[in-house]
Amino acid sequence: MPSPFSSLSDFAALLRAAPGTDAAATQAAQARDADLTKPPGALGRLEDLAQWYCGWRGNARARVTAPQVIVFAGNHGVVAQGISAFPAAVTAQMVANFRAGGAAVNQLAAQVGARMDVVALDLDRPTGDISLGPAMSEDDMLRALNIGWDAVDPATDLLVVGEMGIGNTTSAAAIALALFGGGAEGWTGRGTGLADAALAHKAQIVARAVTVNAASGAGGLEVLRRLGGRELVAMAGAMARARQLRVPVVLDGFICTAAAACLHAECPGALDHAIAGHVSAEPGHPRLLHALGKEPLLALGLRLGEGSGGVLAMGIVQAALACHSGMATFAEAGVSGA
Amino acid sequence: MPSPFSSLSDFAALLRAAPGTDAAATQAAQARDADLTKPPGALGRLEDLAQWYCGWRGNARARVTAPQVIVFAGNHGVVAQGISAFPAAVTAQMVANFRAGGAAVNQLAAQVGARMDVVALDLDRPTGDISLGPAMSEDDMLRALNIGWDAVDPATDLLVVGEMGIGNTTSAAAIALALFGGGAEGWTGRGTGLADAALAHKAQIVARAVTVNAASGAGGLEVLRRLGGRELVAMAGAMARARQLRVPVVLDGFICTAAAACLHAECPGALDHAIAGHVSAEPGHPRLLHALGKEPLLALGLRLGEGSGGVLAMGIVQAALACHSGMATFAEAGVSGA
Repeated sequence: MPSPFSSLSDFAALLRAAPGTDAAATQAAQARDADLTKPPGALGRLEDLAQWYCGWRGNARARVTAPQVIVFAGNHGVVAQGISAFPAAVTAQMVANFRAGGAAVNQLAAQVGARMDVVALDLDRPTGDISLGPAMSEDDMLRALNIGWDAVDPATDLLVVGEMGIGNTTSAAAIALALFGGGAEGWTGRGTGLADAALAHKAQIVARAVTVNAASGAGGLEVLRRLGGRELVAMAGAMARARQLRVPVVLDGFICTAAAACLHAECPGALDHAIAGHVSAEPGHPRLLHALGKEPLLALGLRLGEGSGGVLAMGIVQAALACHSGMATFAEAGVSGA
Repeated sequence: MPSPFSSLSDFAALLRAAPGTDAAATQAAQARDADLTKPPGALGRLEDLAQWYCGWRGNARARVTAPQVIVFAGNHGVVAQGISAFPAAVTAQMVANFRAGGAAVNQLAAQVGARMDVVALDLDRPTGDISLGPAMSEDDMLRALNIGWDAVDPATDLLVVGEMGIGNTTSAAAIALALFGGGAEGWTGRGTGLADAALAHKAQIVARAVTVNAASGAGGLEVLRRLGGRELVAMAGAMARARQLRVPVVLDGFICTAAAACLHAECPGALDHAIAGHVSAEPGHPRLLHALGKEPLLALGLRLGEGSGGVLAMGIVQAALACHSGMATFAEAGVSGA
């Protein structure tokens, strides 16, 4: 199938024209919930999740049967500035680890029965150093958007996009600073484990990247082009494709949420099909989720990326739908009401 | 196998003599964690969970392969005081629903692959009305303790005990008040859905139960006998048996935690093999967990009981062990360190 967009403005138009929920399915799911053998509201957020999911899927008794996780990997020119505790070679090494089944996200994907795909984007050709100029050209960005778009299985029914890219918390912090303001320090964290002095240096690089790229107040897609990395762009492309397919998305951590925030900034409502899977220990993440109005499902101190927290939260979404669609009603079970 | 206890003091002695963790397995699990392909600490609480679990199982590379959930059901004389939104007949109706596979906990147990057992305790013979006197005699309590003890499959490797019993949040609130003090209002919630006036009345009944039974400051097992119900006693018996077997326990909500708190009050350390699966929307639950020093894994606003929140959290424990025991080490994967 040819790509449905050949420019960033085409892509932005797709975001604006994206479909919404099926109101009739949502209402039917709410009505079913009220009949299930439990006190009203006793399953808490699982009930909200189930109704939200049924609305997106257009099915009042939906289940999650084909979850997918896609891990995108990219390399970042900004690592030349010494902003990561791990060397850039680790990106490719971890891609091999994902393909061999040895990473955390592999174990988590297996547990929820998710299909897992790994997409490496030009690892031998890092993006531009964002402390000196834009990360990529519009053509480069369009290629990565298309790769993300095409990576979504049209048969999937719940999507997590994860990432691997040494240096990408620096990109994510710069994106957050450009989109939401405040000081660079508040968006900058230790990533894979920086010490104090290196952390202060990283915040300076983040601030410089936003200034050098004149990114404050730019549109969401422009911010992503100037400050992102190819894996962040591909994540955004995949999340937009999921919206086209009315496939709900579970957001992962800081980097995934920063990529998502660019869609939101470009087109308010572009993340209505996405929930926050977890809040990570990276200090910018709770602030970013707050800015997007997303309440995380889990808060377990993860800060790994790879999609790990999102895939863990997939299990909660599956559980919500298993209850909603599998439970007996009061009438079916012969249970008295209140 | 004959019961290993024939009196409450025998049972208390078993609690005091219960086994602890395997320090060598804990240390080996910590060493393994440090070698896995992730930055140190990046899996947050999943890492702590995995090491804790490995210590209890005496296996530095353990997995959860045989989880069990047992739902105990009992009826409560105190329902005569009008403290529940649902009629007492619902206890037996829900037991039938559990057996037919129609309740929330059935769906959740299936998702995590847990064996599920349902044990109804003399539903046609409610315990004494605790607002007038003790819930049960010592003999009655011993029978329920033994039933709980015997219900644990010795081959299980992770246990949740759930409950069904119209009126049992009143019992749980009275237990919490007797053990930890404060006003009855702070421990009393809406249960299955009481309105405001009925809630105030319920708090009065809770306070009266503690006074009538002179339960403040009594030992944990005596508090459980005077204010509990048979399902709470059986839960305590099952949790004690799990400890004997070095089977970790995931606590469910307010009622499960109140039963567990009686073990803790009787013998500090009796809950070292237990974690808090979730914090429920019943207002006494966060206070009770705080009193026990347990940090919940999940906070999703559930208030259903049945073991539902505990079983949902089983999935998190399984995920923790899947990562810990399934991931590649840096050396195995050829990934560079920091």
